[in-house]
Amino acid sequence: MISLAELQRHIDSGELSPDAAIARSCDAIDAQDKTIGAFVCRSEKPRAAGTGPLRGVAVGIKDIIDTSEFPTEMGSTIYRGWQPRADASVVMMLKQAGATIIGKTTTTAFAATDPTATLNPRNHDHTPGGSSSGSAAAVAAGMIPLALGTQTGGSVIRPASFCGVAAIKPSFHLLPKVGVKCFSWTLDTVGLFAAGVEDLAHGLAAMANRPELLGDATNSTPRIGLVTQEFACAPEAASEEALRVAGVAAERAGASVRAIALPEIAAEAWRIHTTIQQFEAHQAFAWEYRANYDAMPPLLRGRLDESEHFTPADYEEARAIAVRARAALAETFEEVDVFLTFSAPGAAPKGIDWTGDPRFNRLWTLMGVPCVNIPAIIADGGLPVGVQVIARFGDDAGALKAARFVEKALKRT
Amino acid sequence: MISLAELQRHIDSGELSPDAAIARSCDAIDAQDKTIGAFVCRSEKPRAAGTGPLRGVAVGIKDIIDTSEFPTEMGSTIYRGWQPRADASVVMMLKQAGATIIGKTTTTAFAATDPTATLNPRNHDHTPGGSSSGSAAAVAAGMIPLALGTQTGGSVIRPASFCGVAAIKPSFHLLPKVGVKCFSWTLDTVGLFAAGVEDLAHGLAAMANRPELLGDATNSTPRIGLVTQEFACAPEAASEEALRVAGVAAERAGASVRAIALPEIAAEAWRIHTTIQQFEAHQAFAWEYRANYDAMPPLLRGRLDESEHFTPADYEEARAIAVRARAALAETFEEVDVFLTFSAPGAAPKGIDWTGDPRFNRLWTLMGVPCVNIPAIIADGGLPVGVQVIARFGDDAGALKAARFVEKALKRT
Repeated sequence: MISLAELQRHIDSGELSPDAAIARSCDAIDAQDKTIGAFVCRSEKPRAAGTGPLRGVAVGIKDIIDTSEFPTEMGSTIYRGWQPRADASVVMMLKQAGATIIGKTTTTAFAATDPTATLNPRNHDHTPGGSSSGSAAAVAAGMIPLALGTQTGGSVIRPASFCGVAAIKPSFHLLPKVGVKCFSWTLDTVGLFAAGVEDLAHGLAAMANRPELLGDATNSTPRIGLVTQEFACAPEAASEEALRVAGVAAERAGASVRAIALPEIAAEAWRIHTTIQQFEAHQAFAWEYRANYDAMPPLLRGRLDESEHFTPADYEEARAIAVRARAALAETFEEVDVFLTFSAPGAAPKGIDWTGDPRFNRLWTLMGVPCVNIPAIIADGGLPVGVQVIARFGDDAGALKAARFVEKALKRT
Repeated sequence: MISLAELQRHIDSGELSPDAAIARSCDAIDAQDKTIGAFVCRSEKPRAAGTGPLRGVAVGIKDIIDTSEFPTEMGSTIYRGWQPRADASVVMMLKQAGATIIGKTTTTAFAATDPTATLNPRNHDHTPGGSSSGSAAAVAAGMIPLALGTQTGGSVIRPASFCGVAAIKPSFHLLPKVGVKCFSWTLDTVGLFAAGVEDLAHGLAAMANRPELLGDATNSTPRIGLVTQEFACAPEAASEEALRVAGVAAERAGASVRAIALPEIAAEAWRIHTTIQQFEAHQAFAWEYRANYDAMPPLLRGRLDESEHFTPADYEEARAIAVRARAALAETFEEVDVFLTFSAPGAAPKGIDWTGDPRFNRLWTLMGVPCVNIPAIIADGGLPVGVQVIARFGDDAGALKAARFVEKALKRT
């Protein structure tokens, strides 16, 4: 994989020109993407910017995010050839920081569950996960150092776990969603994929112009609460093992690690994630679903068919539960700095018909808290399995710092 | 003006066909819009739906709201001829309820302050207000029974007050913003204009599929708190008089009316509305401002130039104040059912170079609470001056009910 932070150091020192860095990504895409299928379209003559912290950094943009220089087809024939006029805010943030938009990456249709043809770079017989399939796969295959995705259920953390890359779903609204196709306005969150946690921090700090996300030099050891999310049912053995290994590694490296119980309302919040997602999806996809029913991606259409029964009262009740759960969760964070939990139920499922289950991600998306995936173990078939570090709302710096600690601890094992 | 509720009764009883109702609006637009200039573009062959509570209702849509059958030009040359693929969610809600989208109404550029050429139907020498200029003017001139606008500062309630129509800015996110051009995601709220409060209730209930917004038959008298928003400086004499007259009328009709003090933090929240609006606007308009600087509407560009200094830390602090103010405001609503306050500093200013001052609206937009404008008095020059009824977050039914009470009381005076 291409480390963004290392690339920046080579560029800063003059060893590598920004244009050469972009050319390297172009070559890697040429070599690999025929097999992997991570890109929907690519820049014909990508050029590096001369300034900015992300000069020389080739970025892939999930194809539900508007781009003024590329079509934005949302993984659906309904938007075939669709060319937005404006760049989404997050695309402009990247451009302002000097990044080069190298192309658009595959997405499940409308970032729901109808899969793409993208393969998992770690094992081509397996899904890369979704919905941000192409972004996770392009970083994992070493094509690009940075990619944007979005998460409504588990669409950033899950594919990152399946592909063995680092990823962050930042605090809700840290990155703006203007120009990002809406699935659920309460849940949709823009996230980043990169080789490692330091790379995520460099990318996010440059985009958001928040240097505090780079972290400080202090070597403090985090207080980690192990969370098993019983309400989401047990994970497979591989994810159990990933969490165990990560916990042991962190403890050996000096962290305090102990099991922690989530407030009771967390289970209820986890359950009503679907109510909020589907009630809002019916409004967000009203034109697609009502005026283009036959052309709708079949899995998404089926889920909308099944969820027509949610009423405004169901939705209000669900929102009230979410508010109470956020407050209760904030209290739990007085006991520990971060949670450590499963990123997915197991390694990437076989085949590319199904992108996997977001059940260990839903609660955290609804809570709006920052989540960072770190690859923890390699399971059968060479498939990576990650764990996620979760901090309190707004503490993205803390999430990144603790994730870096765990990542480093895992490398020692 | 065309009363939506009355129109519905005529259609329900068979006195008027839905197509005849639409034709009536077409004729009124033909007769008046050459002078008023409320429409940007119109449906060539509008047809009524055969079913739905809003069949026969011609609706004007503010031109920052995406429509699949009309261009959406945002009042700016940057979007000249721009044709969205999809309808915004609120447009689909109207279509689902049987309404006919009759055309797009004028908007200040990007719903900021650069004015349109629209005239105030009550006095052509005056502004109709903004940013939802065309929507307020088209309803006021009796062209259409219903129009959609948006409010980020005071862009629904203020033009309604200036034009002498009823309007509601519902609770934040009661109406979805998918497909509505973003200015500030924390503040932007879709609202409705209609002849009277009953008409608003019928329109909103049908759109949102929430019959409870129609209100019940009970004749309860509201507990009203008079609020003068000292932090926003004193209003002109006309608005002082409008509030006095409305308060007296409500009291005579049996309401309990007393002055009420807002929690101290309200003043602080009012002040930081600008921080949130401008910090988010820099992100929301990043493409327009950075990639199209010369083509930007000059007043908006100037405000963006002036507000580049806001930092993420300023923004976080402002958001924290907003959260605390919302909690404090909820407590104040334990003492009264609704607030009654100024809709604008006075009657519509002379000329069409300036759409007026949103200083009496900002706090309520930031608080996300439902606000309803009711015309209260006619000032010099035949210019109407409104007052606004404000209820707690989520109590849109209560806001509409109390506003209907005050509207009825005012008609008796």
